[in-house]
Formats: sequence, structure tokens, C-alpha cells
Amino acid sequence: MTHTFFETHRDTLTRAVEAIHSRTCWSAYPEIPSGKVYGETAKDDGQKAFEARLNQPFDLPGHPGAGRTGAEASPYGFDLGITYPKVELNELFAVVNRAEQAWKQASVEDRVGVCLEILHRLNQRSFEMALAVMHTTGQGWMMAFQAGGPHAQDRGLEAVAYAWDEMKRTPAEATWSKRVGKEETVTLRKTFRIVPRGIALTIGCSTFPTWNGYPGIFASLATGNAVVVKPHPGAILPLAITVDVARQVLTEAGFDPNVITLAADEISAPITKDIVQRPEVKIIDYTGGSAFGDWIEQNAKHAIVYTEKAGVNSVIIDSVDNLKAVTGNLAFTLSLYSGQMCTTSQNIFIPREGIETSEGHKSFDEVAGALVKAVDWFLGEPKRAAEVLGAIQNENTARRIDQARSEGLTVLRESTPVTNDAFPKARVRSPLILKTDSGDRDRFAREMFGPIAYVIATANTDESIRLAAEVARTQGAITCALYSTNPDVIEKAEHATADAGVPLSTNLTGSIWVNQAAAFSDFHVSGANPAGNATLCDSAFVAGRFRIVQSRMPIAN
Amino acid sequence: MTHTFFETHRDTLTRAVEAIHSRTCWSAYPEIPSGKVYGETAKDDGQKAFEARLNQPFDLPGHPGAGRTGAEASPYGFDLGITYPKVELNELFAVVNRAEQAWKQASVEDRVGVCLEILHRLNQRSFEMALAVMHTTGQGWMMAFQAGGPHAQDRGLEAVAYAWDEMKRTPAEATWSKRVGKEETVTLRKTFRIVPRGIALTIGCSTFPTWNGYPGIFASLATGNAVVVKPHPGAILPLAITVDVARQVLTEAGFDPNVITLAADEISAPITKDIVQRPEVKIIDYTGGSAFGDWIEQNAKHAIVYTEKAGVNSVIIDSVDNLKAVTGNLAFTLSLYSGQMCTTSQNIFIPREGIETSEGHKSFDEVAGALVKAVDWFLGEPKRAAEVLGAIQNENTARRIDQARSEGLTVLRESTPVTNDAFPKARVRSPLILKTDSGDRDRFAREMFGPIAYVIATANTDESIRLAAEVARTQGAITCALYSTNPDVIEKAEHATADAGVPLSTNLTGSIWVNQAAAFSDFHVSGANPAGNATLCDSAFVAGRFRIVQSRMPIAN
Repeated sequence: MTHTFFETHRDTLTRAVEAIHSRTCWSAYPEIPSGKVYGETAKDDGQKAFEARLNQPFDLPGHPGAGRTGAEASPYGFDLGITYPKVELNELFAVVNRAEQAWKQASVEDRVGVCLEILHRLNQRSFEMALAVMHTTGQGWMMAFQAGGPHAQDRGLEAVAYAWDEMKRTPAEATWSKRVGKEETVTLRKTFRIVPRGIALTIGCSTFPTWNGYPGIFASLATGNAVVVKPHPGAILPLAITVDVARQVLTEAGFDPNVITLAADEISAPITKDIVQRPEVKIIDYTGGSAFGDWIEQNAKHAIVYTEKAGVNSVIIDSVDNLKAVTGNLAFTLSLYSGQMCTTSQNIFIPREGIETSEGHKSFDEVAGALVKAVDWFLGEPKRAAEVLGAIQNENTARRIDQARSEGLTVLRESTPVTNDAFPKARVRSPLILKTDSGDRDRFAREMFGPIAYVIATANTDESIRLAAEVARTQGAITCALYSTNPDVIEKAEHATADAGVPLSTNLTGSIWVNQAAAFSDFHVSGANPAGNATLCDSAFVAGRFRIVQSRMPIAN
Repeated sequence: MTHTFFETHRDTLTRAVEAIHSRTCWSAYPEIPSGKVYGETAKDDGQKAFEARLNQPFDLPGHPGAGRTGAEASPYGFDLGITYPKVELNELFAVVNRAEQAWKQASVEDRVGVCLEILHRLNQRSFEMALAVMHTTGQGWMMAFQAGGPHAQDRGLEAVAYAWDEMKRTPAEATWSKRVGKEETVTLRKTFRIVPRGIALTIGCSTFPTWNGYPGIFASLATGNAVVVKPHPGAILPLAITVDVARQVLTEAGFDPNVITLAADEISAPITKDIVQRPEVKIIDYTGGSAFGDWIEQNAKHAIVYTEKAGVNSVIIDSVDNLKAVTGNLAFTLSLYSGQMCTTSQNIFIPREGIETSEGHKSFDEVAGALVKAVDWFLGEPKRAAEVLGAIQNENTARRIDQARSEGLTVLRESTPVTNDAFPKARVRSPLILKTDSGDRDRFAREMFGPIAYVIATANTDESIRLAAEVARTQGAITCALYSTNPDVIEKAEHATADAGVPLSTNLTGSIWVNQAAAFSDFHVSGANPAGNATLCDSAFVAGRFRIVQSRMPIAN
């Protein structure tokens, strides 16, 4: 059965491995939510499946637990009413440990085959997943479909490809023959066994539970580790569906479904710290806020820790060809999912003397004004605004906007509630844009997560580059955008941002945005500044999840 | 200049990369100390070079420092009288940081070329190195030549090969082209830049300063990190020569020699903790005792830490073909370098009812007696004994023998001082062999570093396997030997030891020993038990030493 899975998806794996080596544009799972691709009834089926989940216990056959937990509320204004098994940690780790025994002995092909089949079935469930992601994270439907479905599946597949590649780098066996004397040759048969590290824990976030969760989950599974999935209490459903699908595939393949388990909780009774401190946990993948991520990095010394935390992302505007194309591009970046992406820009550095454009010199205020105008125009169409902004995932983010508003800076653009006709109770806020100066580090050199941007007047582009790099180095950063028509400036910025460990996107206009990261090509988070210690994905992300233990024995020469 | 180095050694690199992938027997540097290979005057030249070092300041042109430090004494009974620059840490890190700037910008080829040239020149200096290693570690001359010279160079080359392979896995650039609409295609040129992590620290040990030090030093250098070498105060000279050679090559290649520096100290005024805690240190390679290694793993949270600590290694005797061949093999293992290898066996588990051999059943006492007899015979020839035993590196190890002796166990073989005619004052002790029982965990489940072995009576081979695995899992282990003619027992032991993260060597007789590990083929330390968290070498050993930071920019379709 398991070998069937591997053979069925072997081509996908081969192409994924080629893609990570070439880093050209490739995707295994179609991002267009089309009936032609997914089946004409797929959208309706997904809607029905999602609705059937509401106000019901989420059933996970054979899953440990005593009682139920879960209190998710859609940012679009209603309670999901779904409950999940409430796990008791001693019982959880006992069953996971048992389940892991056969999983770690399975062949690389069997494990990878199971992973590929799980991804395939998740792909088929993308419409259901879209609604699960939408009504936990607050993403608009289209984004929830793409980022929560096929793009997340691609990132999972990328992790499987890296794991496969890594496990296959060392041969399973070798013959070692050495002449040790005039008459004597020693010949050893050596076997190299892949030994997984132990139980892996994936800690999900509230904004991209699948996209950020899949790489760690699939990298750990493929390399033979059992995985405990600890979703954010505000976004359990997408990972519960994932775990459910994975358990079905594991069962069909003859494995204990508890190779992957769900450890759900509620905000009022968090269990993450307790799980992190369990000595059985040998691998931790974390996505979320910096404070808790730092705590894990400092305290989980018994485990390998991979983190994606938060950062402060910059835009450096030096000189532009077409100002309207630039501000239009940035307007989308600031609006998409109300700035709740870890890749969204927060600080926009512009020389206070203004910039050169193909239409002549533009003052600081003219550039800032053009940006505000672009956001206003973009959000002027209510249906588009509702779809792109989505909803604010939680009340703290909404309150943060008020906090930023109250600090006395000049408001270039007010954040206003926006009506969503389909969901009148949705928590929607448009981007707040504030103006400040390069001396105001206390304000801009901190993460203000949500639809909050600072337009910052600098002495010149040199200062802009220096500040963007400095903030990245001290606070972390995941993206940096540059607009410049000057090759020397581009080169200088490339050096400075590389040194600060932040990827640079230069002169993006049209249908490509700084906050996008493509699986198989873009390394997401560099691991080289405080925004995180790992990358999605590279060898370092997978190589530590298993060890090679050898056995050697003489054979006849 | 630097490209010349790369071109000169390109074939060596290519073959080393092939070797790490095939893991068959290969070596770049000849292990035979022959005049035909190294030049007829090489041995004399090495002797003269070593003698010229004695009782002199060790000159490192351009190296930071104020004053001198160093108080090495040869285990063969004389003071070296060599002093080294005494570094002040603020000055040290300032000059290293300066030196690193050009090094990290250099091409992969330039850096790897420099590393290969350093290894080549170290190889030419192998006779001098042999004496430096012999008179700091106490190894016999032949072992000091091989393990301190060509074998260490091979392990350094292996690390360079892994680093090269890893850095070349991601292309330097890629073109990413995506159809984003009916009429629109976005094409980005992406460049992927290798960004080293920062300053690396290598902490050397007193027994194998070059063999254990080179992998970290060369992996860090090749990936663009500057390296501070902190030798053990008892074994500075081998790493000082290494640093000297490396600085000469760096200078010739146009780099600042402070890309590699030496931070020597004396036992009375240790500086290692202070260096470990410097925030500039981003990578730490440590070989040494478990207590300090554990402290580093727990406290150096600002750095990636690779450790090789200590363990308790086992031999499981189940059944044998030729008992004499087995005990002869083990006699050499126990005697070589007086048991001061991290790979030396300490615990020898034998069923208390005895074992089957091709000459019939042998009782526990007969097997233990055969082992003692083999050691006695092997050490009966004084010249061979002196060469193989070498000398005891430090007084603590000599005292540990007395401690083990005093604990009331039955002494199967006494540890006696052995005369070394060439060095009458050498600190030499032969192996102490004690007898105990499987219930005596307090004694055998702890590391007793040095020429101390326990022959342990067990209920049966199942118990032997269980205890060997359990001790490996809890105390760490680097090797495990098994003697069995029973395929079921071999399979069971393979499973148990793999699970405990300890490599297994089965039925070694003749000229191959459990305490040997061959570069390019044997993974030294698994990283999967408390004996260390890293392997020499695999991808995980190099992949975290650098990060990839990308830059992307639209180009015309």
C-alpha cells in the first residue's frame, strides 16, 4: 500500500527536487480555484464540508483525549462552535511514543510516499481548507484558498523534497576496502541507517496556520519523527483538518494514526509551554510572536528549535521610474490581509528632500501623498476592499491601531472600519499611515503588527539603507523593498541587506509584491537576523531532524 | 593568486566530494611516513623544526596580543618552554571583525582554494606536526604522525568537501518566470548570496587537537567565517602550527591573516568561558569533557554549537569463531594510546555462563583470562608497548587509575608503570582491567577516561545489549563493538545500538579496530546521544554555518 503511494507520486517528487535545485518557477498544486481543475462541485462540496463542521465536535478516530476543548471565533463575526479532543500530556506522549516505533523503522520511500499522499488529499480538500483558513485567520477567501491551500501544500512538498534529497545523500550501504599490509586487505560492509531524532512539535500561528506549519510537519514526518501539532487556539480548524487527513492516510498505509496528533487548547488555558518542556520533544517548529519564540529558543535546550518570529520590514524609496506604478504596488502590499503578513512592510523610508522620478523631482510630501492616494483608490471599490483586506484576526491587533494613532504622529491616512456586505459583523480596518522622522527610532524600530505603516523622512538614501539594515539586524526583518533607478544604490542596498540577513526585492511593480514568497524559489526568513533562526526551506531545515548511525562488519575480500 | 590555489587542488576537491557520497575508502594524504612520499629529508627537517620551537616564543606575525602565555609540558617528561601571544579579548574581536569583512565577500572558490592550500601545506609539515602532537598529547610517534597529520588533514578536507557541496546546492542565480494573467508574465532575476554566520570559535582538546579541531576550523573558514582557535592549554603547539600555516596562506592570497587567530591560555588562568560568552561568537565547535560541553550547550544561546563530548563505550561478546583473534584485537584497542581515545571501549559485557567458540564452550573466567593474556602478551615487548601505549596526557588520568583500583573490585590485570627507554621520565601506565557484575551500574555506567576497562558479567547477551544501549542513551557512547556468530543477535544489536545512536562494529579482528574512524566513510559521533550533538561530518555539520540571503528584481520578459 505504502509503496503504491510512493510510486503514484514519484514524478511529483522528482520535479520538486529539480525545482529546489534550479529555484525556477514551479508549483505542484494549482493556485486557481477553478472547477476545471478541482472538479465542478469542489467549491460547493467544500462549503458543505465546512458548514457541517460548525457547532460540532471534530471527530478524530483513535485520537487520545479526555473531554473537549476549543473556542474559535471567526474574525468575520461568528463563533465556530467546534470542539476538539482535549489531551492529557502523559497519555498523549505515551501513545505517540508507541506510534513512532513502526514509523521510524519504515523505509524512506514508505514515509515519503505517505507524506506525498497526504499532500495530494489536502490539495483535493482545498475549498474546505479555504473556508477553515478564512474563518480562523480572517484572510479574504481567495487568499485563504491560495495561501492556505495550494501554496501551503507546495511549501509542504518543498520540505519533503529537501528531506528526501538529504536522506538520499548518504548511501544506505558502502563497501570499504583498504590495503593494510603487503598481504592483508580489510574489507568492511558498512550500512548507514537513518535514525529520527524523536518526537517533533509544531506550534502553529493564527495567521498562516498551514503555510507556516506544513514545512515543519512534513519535514519531521518524512524523516521519521512523530509529530504533535499544537495549533494556535484561534486557528485550530485548518490544522485539525490536516491532522485528520494525515491520520486517514497513515491508517490506510498500515501505520498507527497517532504518528500525528493534535494538541488543541483555548486562550484561557494555554498548554504550549508545558508541551515545549516535555523531555520527549526533540524538535520544535515555531511560528509566532517574538517574545514566545525567544522564550523557546532560550529554554528548549533539549530540542532542536526552528523559529519564524516577527520582524520590522522596510521599504526604501530612492528614485523611481513611474511613481504611480510604485505606489500602486505598495498600496496592495499594505492592504493585503490588513498588513497581517509577517512579510508586510511597516517602515517606508523616503529622503526628506524628495526623490527623482521620470516625471521630474517629487517632494517627500508628494511621494507620501501619492501612496495615500493609491491606498484610497485601491480600497475605494468596497467589494475589492473587503476581499483584499479580509478581517483583523484578533482584537489586540485592532487595539494596536488605536495605540499607534494615539502617539501624536501626523496621520497621513486614517484607519477606518470598512463594511463587508457578506459579513456585516466582520472586524475590518483599513491601513493607518503615519508620518515621522529618521530620529524617531522608538516608534518605527519596533514591530507594530497589523495595518500600520510609518512613512519616515530621512537625510538621504544612505540613511534609509542604514536604518533599514540596522532595524533588520536588531529587531529582525523578513522582507525589504527597494525602489531605485541607480545601479550603485541597488548594489549598496544589496550588500547592506545581505549583511543584515534580509532578502531584498527591487523595483517591484505590477503583479508581484514584496510580501509574496514562492515555494521552491524564495527562501522565506533567512535565519540570519532576529526574525527567526531557520529558513523555509534549505538543507539546514531538514538535516538536523535525523541522524545517521552506522554499522560495519568485515566481509570476505 | 587565490584562484590558482583552487585550480591547483580542484582534483583533490572533486575526489573528496565523490568520497563523501560513496563513502568508500579514500584518502588524500598518505598515512605512511615514508621518505619516498614526503621527501628523504622530511623526517629530519621535521625534527629540526620541532626542536627549534622549544624554549622560544612562537612567532605569529601580525597577530594581536600583549605579553605571552603558554606552559605546555610533554607527557614524555619535559617542559616545551614555548610561549604564544596572550590576547586581550576586546582587541582580538576588533581585529577579527575587521579581517572577516573581505573574507566573507570572497568567492566560494577563493575561500575553498585557500582551505585546500592550507591543508596541502599542513600535509608537507606532517613530520613536525607528529612531534608537536606527540609531545602535547602523549601519543606514540606513529600514531601522532597519522592521527595528528594525514588523518586529521583528511577530516579537514572532508569538512571542506561538505561545505563546498552545501554551498553549491543552491544556484548563485535563477530566473523565475510566472504567467500571472492572460497578458502578463512576471520575470524576476534572483540572486542567492552566501552570508556567513559570523565569528567561529573552535575549542580544542588535549588528546586529538588537530583531528578533532580541523573539521570545525575548515568548515567555518570555507563558509566565510573568521575562526578563533582556542587550544587546550595542554596542547597548544599543534594548533599554533596550524594557525601559523593558515595565516601564511591567507596573507599570500591577499587576505588579512587575522581571519584565523590563536587564543592560547594556561590552566592556571583559563579564558575559554569568557570567549564563549562573547556576543560576536556565532559558531562554536567544542571537543572535550562532558561537563564543560554541557555548560556550553546550555549557555551559548547566541551561537550554533557543535559538540563532541565523552561517552562510555561497550563491547558485547556473545559468541566467537576464534577467541584468540578476538582478544588480540581487543588487546590492541585497550592499549592504543593508553585508552585515551574517545572511541576506546570501557565496558566489556560477557554472559556469566560463558560463550560458545569454535573450540567449544568457554567460561566467563576463561574469556576474561584470554583477554588479560592477550594484553600481557601484546605489551610484553617493551618497544612495542612504549610505542602503542604512548604516555598519559595528564596527571588526572593517572590518578583516575588509582581511583578505579581503590574501589574494591577484583583486579584482573594490574595497571603498571612501563619503561620507555627513549623517554625515561614519560608518564606511562598500562591498562587496568577490573571485573564486575551487571548490577554494578554505579561503577560501569560512568566514564572512567584512560586505560581502565571493566569486564562485566551479565545474565545473557540480551542483557549485555540492553545495558550497552542504555548506557549509550544515558551517558553517551561513540563506539560499540559486538562479537557474535549469530545473525539474530547481530540484527538485534544493530537495532538497539542504532536506537541509542551509537555506531556498531561487528566481529572486528586483524588490522581493523573499533576505535578507528576513517574520514570520508565513518561518521564520527552520531549526534544522537549525550556523547555529542554533531557528527564529523555531514550536511548538518556545515549547513548552519552560513545562510542564504536572496535579492530579486524584475527583468524584461
